[in-house]
Amino acid sequence: MTTINDVAKAAGVSTATVSRVINQSPNVMPDTIAKVEAVMQAMGYQVKGNRRLNINQGHDTLGLIVSRFNSPFYGLLTQGVEKVARKHQRKVIVASGDYDAACEEDAIQFMVSKGCRNIVIHSKAMSNDALIRHAEQLPGLIVVNRHVPEIESQCVWLDNSEGTYKATCHLIELGHRRIAYLSCEMEVDDKVDRFDGYRRALEEAGIEVNPDWIEEVPFGEPGGALAATNLLNKGLPVTAMVAFNDFYAAAAMQVFKEHGVAIPEQLSIVGFDDVLPQCYFSPKLTTIRSPIESMAMNAARLSLEGTDSSLSRVFHPLLIKRDSAVVPQTD
Amino acid sequence: MTTINDVAKAAGVSTATVSRVINQSPNVMPDTIAKVEAVMQAMGYQVKGNRRLNINQGHDTLGLIVSRFNSPFYGLLTQGVEKVARKHQRKVIVASGDYDAACEEDAIQFMVSKGCRNIVIHSKAMSNDALIRHAEQLPGLIVVNRHVPEIESQCVWLDNSEGTYKATCHLIELGHRRIAYLSCEMEVDDKVDRFDGYRRALEEAGIEVNPDWIEEVPFGEPGGALAATNLLNKGLPVTAMVAFNDFYAAAAMQVFKEHGVAIPEQLSIVGFDDVLPQCYFSPKLTTIRSPIESMAMNAARLSLEGTDSSLSRVFHPLLIKRDSAVVPQTD
Repeated sequence: MTTINDVAKAAGVSTATVSRVINQSPNVMPDTIAKVEAVMQAMGYQVKGNRRLNINQGHDTLGLIVSRFNSPFYGLLTQGVEKVARKHQRKVIVASGDYDAACEEDAIQFMVSKGCRNIVIHSKAMSNDALIRHAEQLPGLIVVNRHVPEIESQCVWLDNSEGTYKATCHLIELGHRRIAYLSCEMEVDDKVDRFDGYRRALEEAGIEVNPDWIEEVPFGEPGGALAATNLLNKGLPVTAMVAFNDFYAAAAMQVFKEHGVAIPEQLSIVGFDDVLPQCYFSPKLTTIRSPIESMAMNAARLSLEGTDSSLSRVFHPLLIKRDSAVVPQTD
Repeated sequence: MTTINDVAKAAGVSTATVSRVINQSPNVMPDTIAKVEAVMQAMGYQVKGNRRLNINQGHDTLGLIVSRFNSPFYGLLTQGVEKVARKHQRKVIVASGDYDAACEEDAIQFMVSKGCRNIVIHSKAMSNDALIRHAEQLPGLIVVNRHVPEIESQCVWLDNSEGTYKATCHLIELGHRRIAYLSCEMEVDDKVDRFDGYRRALEEAGIEVNPDWIEEVPFGEPGGALAATNLLNKGLPVTAMVAFNDFYAAAAMQVFKEHGVAIPEQLSIVGFDDVLPQCYFSPKLTTIRSPIESMAMNAARLSLEGTDSSLSRVFHPLLIKRDSAVVPQTD
């Protein structure tokens, strides 16, 4: 049977430290706690009955770190995680990473300090290296909506490039040749992949990307409106547009309509995510469906049920055809 | 100085029980914990240095119970609570009450069991009596967006009746006489107040409420669409409509437009909440602004800074005039 001495030796710490971890003393660094607990788990160390209650205090929680709270995307993500947590009789502790690496780091440390060893993180700011380090120390840490190859078994992600590729191919098949791409200014990981899918589809069709077609704008409604205004200022050099997300599409669509551009007759639009109710769109939005709730559920399952499960890690986006993309008008 | 004996006597429990509360033993009922801690706080009982770490474990958290996660309304509410929690170096523990009294009860018990004594609850299902009982035991429990007179100092609420009154008066002033009211089927507390404001405005204008004008439908997009369809099936007996929330307004507006009803020329619409981006609406929505983020921030402040503060409890809704309500067409 594994003893406390074996654990100490394997973790490279003193037995006193292992004891402190077991008894959840305040004087142990979170990294050390994570390391010792990982070793205990790997070696099958059984904590005796006299282990204090609070060592289990985190075992009825599931940590969730989102980038922000006020967004339909994160609402669905949270809902998915909570559904699984509830099945496991766990409550969800949430924190916002706020698109900031220090803030995401702080959120992980807080959850670990609460004894929480199962964490789903939607990280937009932390480096791959930092995520790898945390994932290796915390087997119950799952990264959702981001692919880090080195810790692939602890990631659940969307093939983003496939999404914008499908969106752009759909417009090309309809007959469009001049297609705008509306992206974000912020350097988030999916930005590169989504642009890549757009570029790839154009290249395969022998269409050269025109820099005038690309708009990089701040996140949110003003960003989407700005992109539309910019394209209008350039004389609307396109007949179609692929948007980084549905929210950009909604904000841009409104500005286009206000300036007399008929959607979809004069401009076809394809969104990305499919997280907004269709009653917000007129015409109804053709978009790429990101199954963020299902992805969140699988991330929570992997965290709570173990990463040796065969649950899907990579999710594939679908093209949802509605009314905002049609054959271009001949003029 | 207050001793453990004084606390036990005042709380009507044994000193062993007080000791168990201090040491956060698993064998104490949450109600007892809350009672003993309230007495300790009221009597100024200072826990000695040998009190274990974990008695303070909840002192770096703020509990938040929302009705659901996936909604712009609760997104803003959560964002407000988190802003204040962050200023107080607290992390937010969230749970969904799911419009179910047992589920809300369970969420409170969980948070109390985690040592969390500061809780903001958006309760839609629990009875006033149950809320009063919890609020009396937990001075840090604040009810947001609901008015329970007996525990008024622990409530932050909106004058809902004033909101629909303003919406309906605005339509009457524009010249409307036949005004629909779109409400929810679910028996939530604000349902009565909002209907009351509508009824009051009509009565004051000498207009008799016609039952044909009232639609009670399930929450969500299908509900709003159903209400619009029902009104169309009745031959659209109105020239204006007040909606229980913006989401209903958006869903109904789309159905009206699809059936050739020009908004606002043939039908004026006023929403409620103002939590949706305006890019979702064409025409832009005239609505009643509920300052849910500010209300949530005050609820969090009252929980963390004490209810003897003079912070606003009652918030007043504002009429935000945009483009969806105009003078009725003369036909």
